[in-house]
Amino acid sequence: MRLSQFHLHTSKEVPAEAEIISHKLMLKAGMIRKLASGLYTWTPLGLRVLRKVERVVREEMDAAGAIEMLMPSVQPRELWEETGRWEKFGGQLLKVQDRKDAWYCYGPTHEEVITDFARNELASYKQLPVTFYQIQTKFRDEIRPRFGVMRAREFLMKDAYSFHLDDADLDRQYRVMYDAYGRIFTRLGLRFRAVFADTGAIGGSASHEFHVLADSGEDAIAFSDSSDYAANTELAEALAPAGRAAATQAMHKVETPYQRTCEAVAELLQIPLDRTVKSIAVIGEQGFVLALVRGDHTINEIKLAKLPGLGNYRMATEAEILETLGSEPGFLGPVGPRNDIQVIADRSVAAMADFVVGANEKGFHLVGVNWGRDLPEPALVADIRNVVAGDPSPDGAGTLDITRGIEVGHIFQLGRNYAEAMGCTVQDANGKAATPTMGCYGIGVSRIVAAAIEQNHDDNGITWPEAMAPWQAVVCVINPKKDPAVAEAADALYRQLNAAGIETALDDRGLRPGSMFADIELIGIPHRIVVSERGLAAGTFEYRQRRAGESENLDQVTLSARLGVK
Amino acid sequence: MRLSQFHLHTSKEVPAEAEIISHKLMLKAGMIRKLASGLYTWTPLGLRVLRKVERVVREEMDAAGAIEMLMPSVQPRELWEETGRWEKFGGQLLKVQDRKDAWYCYGPTHEEVITDFARNELASYKQLPVTFYQIQTKFRDEIRPRFGVMRAREFLMKDAYSFHLDDADLDRQYRVMYDAYGRIFTRLGLRFRAVFADTGAIGGSASHEFHVLADSGEDAIAFSDSSDYAANTELAEALAPAGRAAATQAMHKVETPYQRTCEAVAELLQIPLDRTVKSIAVIGEQGFVLALVRGDHTINEIKLAKLPGLGNYRMATEAEILETLGSEPGFLGPVGPRNDIQVIADRSVAAMADFVVGANEKGFHLVGVNWGRDLPEPALVADIRNVVAGDPSPDGAGTLDITRGIEVGHIFQLGRNYAEAMGCTVQDANGKAATPTMGCYGIGVSRIVAAAIEQNHDDNGITWPEAMAPWQAVVCVINPKKDPAVAEAADALYRQLNAAGIETALDDRGLRPGSMFADIELIGIPHRIVVSERGLAAGTFEYRQRRAGESENLDQVTLSARLGVK
Repeated sequence: MRLSQFHLHTSKEVPAEAEIISHKLMLKAGMIRKLASGLYTWTPLGLRVLRKVERVVREEMDAAGAIEMLMPSVQPRELWEETGRWEKFGGQLLKVQDRKDAWYCYGPTHEEVITDFARNELASYKQLPVTFYQIQTKFRDEIRPRFGVMRAREFLMKDAYSFHLDDADLDRQYRVMYDAYGRIFTRLGLRFRAVFADTGAIGGSASHEFHVLADSGEDAIAFSDSSDYAANTELAEALAPAGRAAATQAMHKVETPYQRTCEAVAELLQIPLDRTVKSIAVIGEQGFVLALVRGDHTINEIKLAKLPGLGNYRMATEAEILETLGSEPGFLGPVGPRNDIQVIADRSVAAMADFVVGANEKGFHLVGVNWGRDLPEPALVADIRNVVAGDPSPDGAGTLDITRGIEVGHIFQLGRNYAEAMGCTVQDANGKAATPTMGCYGIGVSRIVAAAIEQNHDDNGITWPEAMAPWQAVVCVINPKKDPAVAEAADALYRQLNAAGIETALDDRGLRPGSMFADIELIGIPHRIVVSERGLAAGTFEYRQRRAGESENLDQVTLSARLGVK
Repeated sequence: MRLSQFHLHTSKEVPAEAEIISHKLMLKAGMIRKLASGLYTWTPLGLRVLRKVERVVREEMDAAGAIEMLMPSVQPRELWEETGRWEKFGGQLLKVQDRKDAWYCYGPTHEEVITDFARNELASYKQLPVTFYQIQTKFRDEIRPRFGVMRAREFLMKDAYSFHLDDADLDRQYRVMYDAYGRIFTRLGLRFRAVFADTGAIGGSASHEFHVLADSGEDAIAFSDSSDYAANTELAEALAPAGRAAATQAMHKVETPYQRTCEAVAELLQIPLDRTVKSIAVIGEQGFVLALVRGDHTINEIKLAKLPGLGNYRMATEAEILETLGSEPGFLGPVGPRNDIQVIADRSVAAMADFVVGANEKGFHLVGVNWGRDLPEPALVADIRNVVAGDPSPDGAGTLDITRGIEVGHIFQLGRNYAEAMGCTVQDANGKAATPTMGCYGIGVSRIVAAAIEQNHDDNGITWPEAMAPWQAVVCVINPKKDPAVAEAADALYRQLNAAGIETALDDRGLRPGSMFADIELIGIPHRIVVSERGLAAGTFEYRQRRAGESENLDQVTLSARLGVK
């Protein structure tokens, strides 16, 4: 592509509403233009990148045996009523009435449509397993669209759905798709993690999210420093420490007049925070519960809610605390409360000795507290905290680190919920109707573009991984009008590189070097080659790798080798 | 692709609502499945064909210098109000309110969005000319969706828009796109015609429709048998015949008691229909007008309305006719009516001698009528009829034939209407604001698939042109489980052909030959190769071209040559 024939339109200013770096850089580079809230036009430059992601996704889906199809974006209300999601899906569902007053929605996802397709198309177990996918524009009416295409309302998504006779086969295909996702993000040149995920409201069993790692990510991910293990911090298991030390101190009360937090108590007493214990008062099915986590840890509400009797727990009110423990919050503790109070200790707390807790008396804490001596062993020991960096990895390999990630893919084992709700069955080998079990596998194609920029940028602009760059290389011409020989040499190199399979642009716009180079750095082309009068005289081209600081003058043979020309 | 791994699902029954052959065959072949009125899922088989069309369109657009981009499908009301089309577009515009009660539409076309893009992106004449295009799902809320994807509500379209400083440059690019369209349909292997079109409500000047020729087409097209000339019959010019013969008969009145049509009169008098003249009474700005066309011709209302004073003409009522001519319809004629009646003669009528007209008297016609003798020369001679087969071509080359066509593309010179309405300007060479002139160029990508089937089918199914077929060739295996050598030979051939660049499927589904061949003929694969035990023993493959009646047994060298393997 000759850039003089392409619509490249960078800009220096960025609207104030662009909060994150990918949004800013996509606007500055002229990859997207805003049409309305959460609606973006992909310019020619942006579309080139989007299509590269799309192509890799398609190739890997095909390789994984998924079969491409295309469902309508507009879906009839009746299907969504069969699964109850017409109401349940909430405000993100863009509902629309046609000229005959029939209701439809602009599909935010396609479980209903594919299950309808399956119940009409799949008659026999012999047609299973099968995985369908599509790459399609979807719409979610976000309450607060922001971050450009990262959280747009209209977006490009790959969604795949698989159908299986039994759970073992679903497991098998789930693994195939898991691996395909890994290949996709690897091929795109992105640092990513597959993390265990809570299936939440969608139901089903196994679920993984795929996150592109970036400091600006919305999600915190715990991952092992020496294995594949990764999970949302909310879901990662905190293992029990090895054993409990022997008691060395006698329990005694200390005055803590203004110290209502573990941090304040630790500072006053000049002890490490991990010697203190936080007592959280909640009300479960059986009444008052005191949940204990170490002072340097935080309680994990999802884990707590999974314990018996706490499915719908709530925080205790100040009045309930005062009535039950005789103290106000800030000085609570598990020592000596009434017998009917259940004490649940986090695994870390159960392993502590000589620890500090509130005295259930305003202005006092207890120091040197020990289990089995000063208070009974906890009624229940469980994992009820969030993991922190340095915790041992739950898979036994290495220790956990915490990073931030942007969710760009999500795979689920849906199970039979949709097929059952919509009466989708096939004949099994015995001629009986069997309800297939389903998997679903999504990738936010347009979101990947923004996530990649969050991960790959510097002060001068985007630093694309090679597979996502609009072009792999660009040939820049200095003063083409002044010296036809320079223009000719640049043109020849441009054509040679393209012929050799290096997707190359020619910057023949005639800009001054400063503006030209700034544009090229901003839009993130991995390899820049400058053809100038001086270089031509010396028989060299000036080569610079986008992520490298320095330029080099190379002859054509060396340049070709550097670019990987075969 | 091994068909055992592909979702091929043909069926024998076709829903009654499928009226036309392409709709029936697409359902039978399992290319599409209906989701709701005017909404179709493209199955894996259908999508393969759709993508082939899309690819050819994209390649030719790129070759024509158009630059691909992608605009949102959801468009804000405000833009459509700037051009007045929010109201004017009518019921086809699917309007939708988001969760904040703002109005949007699901884009049926993108003039507003691209003009908004242009006014933000284009600042200088140096950025012109530029042509943008996209291939995108669009929605038109048809009042009566039918014919499957031929007139669906959701459909895939290529729309392109060009911007130019002056009309000459628009003309130039219009020609470039015209040629690109020709290459697209030629590459797809379709018989087509580019026809002059009326720009209708869209405004602007030049306009061509591209029609795939098929007997079932909705539009009648007049085309020259010896040149490129083609036009909608409504727009094709009917040339004036050469000169008028001398009068040979005296005018006389004949009794035609029940003969109220030219056909009936000609039959009664035993004369050719082209000796009679039809008189049509209309009311224009200046009052009563009698428009005359030959008995074997039909009046063209579009041409009539283009004459001075007839822009808003209407048919005269029976009362008006009786009052003006003193006769009831069926016996009207131009001889002897009041002087204030304007007589407009079609060119053919003006060239007639000794003709027959109504006598303005119930039950009578006049025979042997001649211009200048029995009545004054017509006040106006004009082309006011539809062309018929056998008319001379308006470009002077050959004679016209009439065929039927399906509109699959349409190119317009839009002019400055949109740019003016939306305040889109660029700086010209003198630094002054100039309003660009625009072209727009559409192709119904999904419609092409249906149109191609209308043109290419036989009793057994679809007969795809090679470029559109889901696969170019298929290798069919007879009894693969019985004889592993047959399965192996088929598999080897399948892999060889694909390696040689012939896109080949392997029918390894294990069906009986009858069912297998019926499927393969139905879905229209151009080249079928059967591998059987007997053939293997003889060292031959059974080859059949889809459009040929006979199979041949060929050795592999001959087969490769026949398939064009290089």
